[in-house]
Amino acid sequence: MSAQELRIGMVGYAFMGAAHSQAWRTVNRVFDLPLRARMVAVAGQHADRVSAAAHQLGWEESTTDWRTLVDRPDIDVIDICTPGDSHAEIALAALAAGKHVLCEKPLANSLDEARAMASAAAAADARSMCGYNYRRVPAAALMREYVTSGRLGAIRHVRAVYLQDWIVDPAFPLVWRLRKERSGSGALGDIGSHIVDLTQYVTGQSIASVSALTETFVRSRPLPGEAAAGLGGVAATGFGEVTVDDAALFLARFGGGAVGTFEATRFATGRKNGLRIEINGEHGSLAFDLERLNELEYYDARLPGPEQGFRRILVTEPGHPYLSAWWPPGHVIGWEHSFTHQARDFIDAVATGGELRPSFADALGVQLVLDAVERSASAGAWTTV
Amino acid sequence: MSAQELRIGMVGYAFMGAAHSQAWRTVNRVFDLPLRARMVAVAGQHADRVSAAAHQLGWEESTTDWRTLVDRPDIDVIDICTPGDSHAEIALAALAAGKHVLCEKPLANSLDEARAMASAAAAADARSMCGYNYRRVPAAALMREYVTSGRLGAIRHVRAVYLQDWIVDPAFPLVWRLRKERSGSGALGDIGSHIVDLTQYVTGQSIASVSALTETFVRSRPLPGEAAAGLGGVAATGFGEVTVDDAALFLARFGGGAVGTFEATRFATGRKNGLRIEINGEHGSLAFDLERLNELEYYDARLPGPEQGFRRILVTEPGHPYLSAWWPPGHVIGWEHSFTHQARDFIDAVATGGELRPSFADALGVQLVLDAVERSASAGAWTTV
Amino acid sequence: MSAQELRIGMVGYAFMGAAHSQAWRTVNRVFDLPLRARMVAVAGQHADRVSAAAHQLGWEESTTDWRTLVDRPDIDVIDICTPGDSHAEIALAALAAGKHVLCEKPLANSLDEARAMASAAAAADARSMCGYNYRRVPAAALMREYVTSGRLGAIRHVRAVYLQDWIVDPAFPLVWRLRKERSGSGALGDIGSHIVDLTQYVTGQSIASVSALTETFVRSRPLPGEAAAGLGGVAATGFGEVTVDDAALFLARFGGGAVGTFEATRFATGRKNGLRIEINGEHGSLAFDLERLNELEYYDARLPGPEQGFRRILVTEPGHPYLSAWWPPGHVIGWEHSFTHQARDFIDAVATGGELRPSFADALGVQLVLDAVERSASAGAWTTV
Amino acid sequence: MSAQELRIGMVGYAFMGAAHSQAWRTVNRVFDLPLRARMVAVAGQHADRVSAAAHQLGWEESTTDWRTLVDRPDIDVIDICTPGDSHAEIALAALAAGKHVLCEKPLANSLDEARAMASAAAAADARSMCGYNYRRVPAAALMREYVTSGRLGAIRHVRAVYLQDWIVDPAFPLVWRLRKERSGSGALGDIGSHIVDLTQYVTGQSIASVSALTETFVRSRPLPGEAAAGLGGVAATGFGEVTVDDAALFLARFGGGAVGTFEATRFATGRKNGLRIEINGEHGSLAFDLERLNELEYYDARLPGPEQGFRRILVTEPGHPYLSAWWPPGHVIGWEHSFTHQARDFIDAVATGGELRPSFADALGVQLVLDAVERSASAGAWTTV
Repeated sequence: MSAQELRIGMVGYAFMGAAHSQAWRTVNRVFDLPLRARMVAVAGQHADRVSAAAHQLGWEESTTDWRTLVDRPDIDVIDICTPGDSHAEIALAALAAGKHVLCEKPLANSLDEARAMASAAAAADARSMCGYNYRRVPAAALMREYVTSGRLGAIRHVRAVYLQDWIVDPAFPLVWRLRKERSGSGALGDIGSHIVDLTQYVTGQSIASVSALTETFVRSRPLPGEAAAGLGGVAATGFGEVTVDDAALFLARFGGGAVGTFEATRFATGRKNGLRIEINGEHGSLAFDLERLNELEYYDARLPGPEQGFRRILVTEPGHPYLSAWWPPGHVIGWEHSFTHQARDFIDAVATGGELRPSFADALGVQLVLDAVERSASAGAWTTV
Repeated sequence: MSAQELRIGMVGYAFMGAAHSQAWRTVNRVFDLPLRARMVAVAGQHADRVSAAAHQLGWEESTTDWRTLVDRPDIDVIDICTPGDSHAEIALAALAAGKHVLCEKPLANSLDEARAMASAAAAADARSMCGYNYRRVPAAALMREYVTSGRLGAIRHVRAVYLQDWIVDPAFPLVWRLRKERSGSGALGDIGSHIVDLTQYVTGQSIASVSALTETFVRSRPLPGEAAAGLGGVAATGFGEVTVDDAALFLARFGGGAVGTFEATRFATGRKNGLRIEINGEHGSLAFDLERLNELEYYDARLPGPEQGFRRILVTEPGHPYLSAWWPPGHVIGWEHSFTHQARDFIDAVATGGELRPSFADALGVQLVLDAVERSASAGAWTTV
Repeated sequence: MSAQELRIGMVGYAFMGAAHSQAWRTVNRVFDLPLRARMVAVAGQHADRVSAAAHQLGWEESTTDWRTLVDRPDIDVIDICTPGDSHAEIALAALAAGKHVLCEKPLANSLDEARAMASAAAAADARSMCGYNYRRVPAAALMREYVTSGRLGAIRHVRAVYLQDWIVDPAFPLVWRLRKERSGSGALGDIGSHIVDLTQYVTGQSIASVSALTETFVRSRPLPGEAAAGLGGVAATGFGEVTVDDAALFLARFGGGAVGTFEATRFATGRKNGLRIEINGEHGSLAFDLERLNELEYYDARLPGPEQGFRRILVTEPGHPYLSAWWPPGHVIGWEHSFTHQARDFIDAVATGGELRPSFADALGVQLVLDAVERSASAGAWTTV
Repeated sequence: MSAQELRIGMVGYAFMGAAHSQAWRTVNRVFDLPLRARMVAVAGQHADRVSAAAHQLGWEESTTDWRTLVDRPDIDVIDICTPGDSHAEIALAALAAGKHVLCEKPLANSLDEARAMASAAAAADARSMCGYNYRRVPAAALMREYVTSGRLGAIRHVRAVYLQDWIVDPAFPLVWRLRKERSGSGALGDIGSHIVDLTQYVTGQSIASVSALTETFVRSRPLPGEAAAGLGGVAATGFGEVTVDDAALFLARFGGGAVGTFEATRFATGRKNGLRIEINGEHGSLAFDLERLNELEYYDARLPGPEQGFRRILVTEPGHPYLSAWWPPGHVIGWEHSFTHQARDFIDAVATGGELRPSFADALGVQLVLDAVERSASAGAWTTV
């Protein structure tokens, strides 16, 4: 890196690329950091589109060959925002070239790829992180603090759902997220991975075994006319098979003794981005809902009985994670801010050598749980992670 | 009274009469009390109807002449559930006859009547109470406890509304509650009186001055075919003038330094029984909503900053007011239970000689505020209570 | 039965007995019914206590031998409010004697008993019902109506929890509900049975297969000094083993294609009576929370997109189930009212010969699910009901 | 302006300056607009600080003399983010120099200044707008759409509060917002102005008359050691008098027949940024809370009675105002986004000549209401705006 800059090359520019761009553009305007992010270049498959995206999102240059980003000496970080089928190839090349890597989740579409990535990351001098951004929602980080501080005592129950509804309509087209060869899995990998990572992070416990079911409610969908960006789609030209799960549900036993229920679905009509986590411990409970991400509910069972209740903490105070850099109390932040916080921690760790989590090893841990879920769903039995 | 019984005679058997009957019938089944309520007789204007009501509601006898109840030596309590225009006459007769009196709110339709009632009550050996039943909703009683215990410190703000919507439709008929000669006033006396009483009770401060407006949005309504019971009405036979307020709004200064906003309306579309009170003090706040009457929200500003939040206390614990006699925690109670609690306290005070509030003097205090509101609305200026 | 009365004999007088007594006492005061409930006698083990309970709850007589109730010609209905280990014996005797039977849930502690009860009920002329009272919470009955009317279309997801926390404290004593020989199972039978019955009722689908886990977090507890009533306990005299589950979690596949997650626990710190059900269908969703039992949330996906949202229906309108008999809109009811509604439907069906559900056969269906859950938890594999 | 750029010069760089900077930096990355904002220079009083702010917030240059910004030909827009005592001087100079002007609210500290600004704006060729940013919160803009489309019918009630608590502690210092000579007024102008503007905007009705009270609960506060930025303060060096209101409450009559209650306070313990508005109309109601700014509650009284309820619309759909440019449904935005939307509309109007509201005339209208509130509070009587 240059003396003061951390020079970023991003691969992919759709939904996640836009969110990451917003983060790189904003992070140094809000946080005081030893390095300043510079948005050097973005890579994509179609020259016109990637050029337009670079202009729109604020990248200095664009390219149709991500390998040129890896090869450039004036790029320090490769930020991978592509579908899961290309994560491994790009990340391994980048690490081999000595670049720091920020890779979107889930880490990879296969366990073999994920293992190779974790090994390469462990062996590399450069830094790497997987983009489970919800760890950096202030309320989620506060959950972690509350568990770590012992406020909950022994954890008994974890209840985690990630509910969406964007494909309830059978006429919604067969976008890449519904094709196994591109996305690896459906709701499980896309959003189930988030609640696996987040509950393991918050509780400090790993999922040890699972019993699962997966379901595809709508098995055939119209083909999109051309590659669709983001979560949307375009005009159809025939039908194709949905090769991923619409929903994945599982029970879990954690290493530390807690038990849990998990559900990821794209068929929860009316729930748009409903990541909800509740944790019950012997001394208290926590509840979080991503659709109200500035709030955390906390129940303190050590208060006198008649004074107990779930307390809605508005997580906008300067004493809350990341918030001292933003606005006064009550001036709420949004979903995108989690990416800015992720960028903040990434830059800080690169500059200072501090810990950077979730590591590729952490993300491999999530993949192992997802793999156990799929094996359990096939076998119809409890499966060890 | 007999050795073990407290013998009740009730006047009026419509909405309030049904609620009071449920209370007298239930109170000794739930609470241990030194006297057992006996539902001796009910009085009403129409022989057939009052007889049917007695049968339905569980009264031993019925009569069309309330004076016979006052005269009977085997009746200890006169429970007045009629419209406000007859409260004074009945209550004064009952007190003169040595009966204990429970009188529905508002105490009377005129200040003169209310003053006479308060004087008679103060001079009587018998006990009396006005039926501001919401003091006996457990969460409201808990609010009082929290203020009294100093949890809020000096009170700064009171915010009180009572929102209903049952006459939004201009075709709703001209029932007795919309005619000044029967009801005294409209939303102001019917529901505004509740929030005046409740905020004065909870804060321990009296309203000292007000600035008000009243409004009648729909000035002419169809006449009901015959006397309508409860809040409902029947087929119309022409139109008549609405002679009461549809809504009353006022600002208030309390004797103790707090300032407040008050609103009572029957035109808050979608709000069915929306009595809401919020109180802000220097050390904390309380918020209550009658539509969720098993809950109280409490904010404790003396906790560490990042742990503060509005705490939803589910007011169903044995340590909460009245609740040890009911069901296990979380098994919620309803609106009618406030009347059973009122009956409990009435019986207990009669038996033990303990304090019995709100007294007629307290209720006169409410009337004085309502009168100041009406005077202020007429004068367009601040008015002293 | 006599010409106008339905004469009740109740067995057991603790928590459930008190709730049933409130229902029998109230039902004819609120609903117009062809028969009037008469509370003839209550049976219990301890003469003093059952006599006191009779006095407190309003029963004309008491006895220490429930068989005398079954034998009396002046009793029409046997209402069974005892722990599950005596349900079968009492119900079979009552049916054999030609009595109508209302039996608390779960139906029995063993499948054999439940089968015998369902057979006897099917063969009897008398009527019978199992006390899954939550079907008669108006909002739950409204859920059923909404599903039946097609508002949700094909049902995709069921999410059901019943969360309590009354034994989180390891010092809480070993009451009868924690001993398998009395209660059959723990959270599973006590509260899990409710969400099995209610989701099957609301969706009109039966659970076909399950994968489950059960857990006992606190395996040894202080012995209560003497038999404890209700959910509470008294002073301890040594320790004993907890022989039931503290929590039961399971995945389910319904016969009609829906998938579900279920959880019943007594270790959800801060959740007092947290029965929550969410149902997602292709055209809409419903969500219900027993702690806010006057509300139902409904999402209508057939409205224009930007107008969609979860709608909080305050279920207190005269057009809602059971509500026309109670108070005006917004005057909320409580938990106990579900028992009054149950009594209403029981009396009505006895008088008119109408359908009476949940039948013992329905309740056996619940038992079969609970049995499959226990077998699945033992086997660690999916199990057919 | 240059062919493609709109060149901005900003005056002031504290709380509002940071929010505006975030908006100018982001707007063209999210919205497609005919002009690109260029952050040319920022002006402030202290050379070191303004230079640091320019670096932090992303301005190309800084200056200690705002007049140089007005004089520069390469600046098209003057963005005024200073306290209210300098608005008029800067805005008049900028308009005189032919610059477009975006001026923070409230428009000015005196009516004379505000009138002069509105006159100058009306006479100028350049465009101008006052920064009542909450009009651009999507849910607030949606409220306006719902009223305009007739969904509510005649409006009966407006209920508006803006509740904060940042000066509840008497030890909080005497920052500039508590000194009349800098801020003009206290809660009234700072936050009361927002609810006046927003309710007038949403309802399309103007406030015609008011009755008000103002209160200063803590009349003396520690002096800050030096000029404090944002809402915070620093070490005290003596005490000074608070010369503005801590709270302002008023009743209002709108020109179109609605009645309203308003409250702005900095003493609502636990409420951090609690701008709440409820509007009741003859056909429906709307409710909004800035602390949950991605949600709008809508009650449609034209649905069948038993289906009515307040509907929580998650205002994140592409069909909602401003949202098609942001993230997928359910990916919530924050407080700062309202400034980006304001920048979007400002740029668009400058480029296309379209309408740009709230105009200085609109903002003068707000000032006239605030002035009537202060006069009413002094006189103790209803006052015409």
